Amino acid sequence: MRIYLSKFAIIICLTLIFPSPTLSLKSAVNVWPKPRLVSWPKPLARFLSANFTIDSPYHQHLAPAVTRYLALIRTEHYHPLITPSVNLSASAPPLQTLSINITDLAVPLQHGVNETYSLSISEVGEKAYLIAETAWGAMRGLETFSQLVWGDPSAIPVGLYIWDAPLFAYRGVMLDTSRNYYEVEDILRTIEAMSANKVNVFHWHITDSHSFPLMVPSEPELAAKGSYGPDMIYSPSDVAKIVQFGLEHGVRILPEIDSPGHTGSWAEAYPEIVACANMFWLPPGIAWADRLASEPGTGHLNPLNQKTYKVLKNVIRDVSNLFPETFYHGGADEIVPGCWKADPTIQLFLSNGGTLGQLLEKFINSTNNTKKIVQAGYQTIVASSEFYYLDCGHGDFLGNDSLYDPQTTGRDPKDGKSWCDPFKAWQTIYNYDITFGLSEDEAKLVLGGEVVLWSEQADPTVLDGKLWPRTSAMAETLWSGNRDEGGRKRSAEATDRLNEWRYRMVSRGVKAEPIQPLWCIRNPGMCNASPFT
Amino acid sequence: MRIYLSKFAIIICLTLIFPSPTLSLKSAVNVWPKPRLVSWPKPLARFLSANFTIDSPYHQHLAPAVTRYLALIRTEHYHPLITPSVNLSASAPPLQTLSINITDLAVPLQHGVNETYSLSISEVGEKAYLIAETAWGAMRGLETFSQLVWGDPSAIPVGLYIWDAPLFAYRGVMLDTSRNYYEVEDILRTIEAMSANKVNVFHWHITDSHSFPLMVPSEPELAAKGSYGPDMIYSPSDVAKIVQFGLEHGVRILPEIDSPGHTGSWAEAYPEIVACANMFWLPPGIAWADRLASEPGTGHLNPLNQKTYKVLKNVIRDVSNLFPETFYHGGADEIVPGCWKADPTIQLFLSNGGTLGQLLEKFINSTNNTKKIVQAGYQTIVASSEFYYLDCGHGDFLGNDSLYDPQTTGRDPKDGKSWCDPFKAWQTIYNYDITFGLSEDEAKLVLGGEVVLWSEQADPTVLDGKLWPRTSAMAETLWSGNRDEGGRKRSAEATDRLNEWRYRMVSRGVKAEPIQPLWCIRNPGMCNASPFT
Repeated sequence: MRIYLSKFAIIICLTLIFPSPTLSLKSAVNVWPKPRLVSWPKPLARFLSANFTIDSPYHQHLAPAVTRYLALIRTEHYHPLITPSVNLSASAPPLQTLSINITDLAVPLQHGVNETYSLSISEVGEKAYLIAETAWGAMRGLETFSQLVWGDPSAIPVGLYIWDAPLFAYRGVMLDTSRNYYEVEDILRTIEAMSANKVNVFHWHITDSHSFPLMVPSEPELAAKGSYGPDMIYSPSDVAKIVQFGLEHGVRILPEIDSPGHTGSWAEAYPEIVACANMFWLPPGIAWADRLASEPGTGHLNPLNQKTYKVLKNVIRDVSNLFPETFYHGGADEIVPGCWKADPTIQLFLSNGGTLGQLLEKFINSTNNTKKIVQAGYQTIVASSEFYYLDCGHGDFLGNDSLYDPQTTGRDPKDGKSWCDPFKAWQTIYNYDITFGLSEDEAKLVLGGEVVLWSEQADPTVLDGKLWPRTSAMAETLWSGNRDEGGRKRSAEATDRLNEWRYRMVSRGVKAEPIQPLWCIRNPGMCNASPFT
Repeated sequence: MRIYLSKFAIIICLTLIFPSPTLSLKSAVNVWPKPRLVSWPKPLARFLSANFTIDSPYHQHLAPAVTRYLALIRTEHYHPLITPSVNLSASAPPLQTLSINITDLAVPLQHGVNETYSLSISEVGEKAYLIAETAWGAMRGLETFSQLVWGDPSAIPVGLYIWDAPLFAYRGVMLDTSRNYYEVEDILRTIEAMSANKVNVFHWHITDSHSFPLMVPSEPELAAKGSYGPDMIYSPSDVAKIVQFGLEHGVRILPEIDSPGHTGSWAEAYPEIVACANMFWLPPGIAWADRLASEPGTGHLNPLNQKTYKVLKNVIRDVSNLFPETFYHGGADEIVPGCWKADPTIQLFLSNGGTLGQLLEKFINSTNNTKKIVQAGYQTIVASSEFYYLDCGHGDFLGNDSLYDPQTTGRDPKDGKSWCDPFKAWQTIYNYDITFGLSEDEAKLVLGGEVVLWSEQADPTVLDGKLWPRTSAMAETLWSGNRDEGGRKRSAEATDRLNEWRYRMVSRGVKAEPIQPLWCIRNPGMCNASPFT
């Protein structure tokens, strides 16, 4: 479908404050996530000059991104699975330069930073123009530009205008590096793929009860004794490398040190500060409510031990110094009474009239005095286990489960399921509206969302396939939405475009899972459930 | 647990006809699939000589296997996740040689071939002994020997006797290379992993409606026009390489050319022999019973066209020549009336009083005159979609499905599910008894089973993680069963052993999916659903 630059669109370009209608880009030219506004009246394209360059003002983090994108644009030569049906004029002058203009180079990478950009590629002239409010918006525009380039020699659509900005400021991926360990290179590859999908927050669930892989300078014993081994520790220089890589890709690195629950691994260095460490999680005969942890791997920090606060404050201070990020995630999930009740000192406290509520209050009051504790108030980041948990649907990781014995499915209570079954298909993620059912005021408090990969059954061997392309589905929904200009779910069009993008991600080194047979991609629409869109 | 060689066991060694009780190998020393009988009275081990060799009678396919295993045994130096608790005597003489003795070197690799072997490694003496009925049994014993070796320098348990043989003759993996293409190297890596798991049949679902990737010498147009492209065709030399690789790994290559349904790709070369080719699979408003195919990708061979038989016979003859395998799989699944009814010539046949039953009869009678058509009678190979389909549980591959729209799960009719949800967890596969509910006589007709990977949502990027370690779960159940000597499901012990085997497979280059956090593996039993085994 051809789109004409409407007066309405012009108004949007001037004001940038009202959400624009999402317009369809001709299927032959794919960008993921789809930009908010695309105008491409005629299906024209030009070649890129062999000496194509990017002209950019200097910015310490943008500069390496420009170098990276220039190399990608010059060498990728991606061949779309559907040959673009465009008029590629050999006589038109090749595009020589992408000229970047940035309004404010001083804006740091932080929550809510302006990621708006516009891209103009005219039918004639040596230059194309990328205009952004910030260096981070310019990175988004560079990614879009790189996805517009295809073929050998490289070509790009012209007579094209794009205006783009995210619907939600927070678009994240949470990765658990405690249950299983990931190499630094796996994390860097993930951050690069996030950037290519305009996903801007890497929520790093660093520690948990299973291992403590972060070297905390003032508490080195935590990793020395609590990690899976000397070759499975993130050193301060590893963290610096990851943070720097994130800055050069417009991706914030948000650290999480889970406490007071999920701290069994801390007991390897300091057994005295952890209640119920390394006990069998579900003692026979006790009620679920009295379990020692919500899953194997027990241990809660003991609020009655002053050393708890000494260690925790050292950890929080060092983590705050290691990560420039202003958000700090304190965890505080799955605190179960059973664990604290199992500790002798806490039993005494309770027998003297103390309550578990007082325990938690004591813990919170003694630790939230750091300015880095998130002050987001009632604001929300959606990470629904029903829509956004990427580890679900591969069965339970528990061993010795007699519920798997039955020989007939259906009547089988377990039936190969995990608690958060089913697997979250990309369509489920794509079609999820994170503000569904909220009032307009409530919706304003939703900062965005993040997909979540817990690592009971994930590690580097399967990381890419579990994250991609399902994270791409969330990325587009949170960036430009999941509906067409008519307000209809753009499922069919998105399927064709996501297929193309998945293959392009694979060609860039990300082992994303295929969503359809190649035959379906080569025969658009033929693999739909319904021929009507 | 220590096992003593019982009189009962001796009887079994002599007769080999009654299934022996499955005995547990000390957890510190892992073999997958677990051998039928292991005797290891004392936890003793010896080092392997730096000049360790394998002494074997010459056999053209065994020889390369011996070379391969010798290199693996000398260089693997696998470090178990749980350090073996054995008495490793430095003073004991190092093991110099594994001596192989084979009863009949002439037996070819075919269904039901004897895979029995025994392995004796004494506390003293220079030699260990591997005794097998056939070269194929010797390959199974070599794999077991390689899994017994660990550490650097290499050590191996001694005072050890193993007797082993499969419970089921057919233990297979089906791979669909039509919906998405796999490189020859992906197939070879899969065959090598199968051999390491004592899985002995690679059921190659080569062609389907989506692509025809096999170069058939006498019908070259089928692949030239019906494949996904010139770089996605299996040449006769590729097939020869795969067959040869299979012979050197004790894995049969069983070809399947699906017909008369699932033949849409044949129409690219011969449109006249295919009914309803390349039509939308589920025309709006028609009943499911009248669909043109069970999934997108339409086309059935036309039984009324004599050219159909000319082409099909050429294909069957060439495939029979390319593959030494005596089994030929003719497909014949999902034949839907709607496709044949949509063809004008068949409409005429039906309007003149012909029936669909006559059509199918005509097709069968005209094609089953080749001696290679499987003559297994009523015998069965179990490939249950409820237990053995490895592609299930990742959502439906159909595009434009409004069933994904609802924002609440539970009431959602689709809820991210595929028709064969849920994902088949390794526990579901491991605990499945393929003769469940059958009489003794009926059970005798069950040749074995195979896990199945259809490729709507699989290709080389995710192949290993979808196959492994779930195929290992089937491998052990079909080789030595899923119960301990007391007849109880050995779920807990198998979990610990499969964890170790999964890591060893990864170290051998197979990207198998993890089934538990490393913490669980290092703390055996702590991640069980119940502490009672």
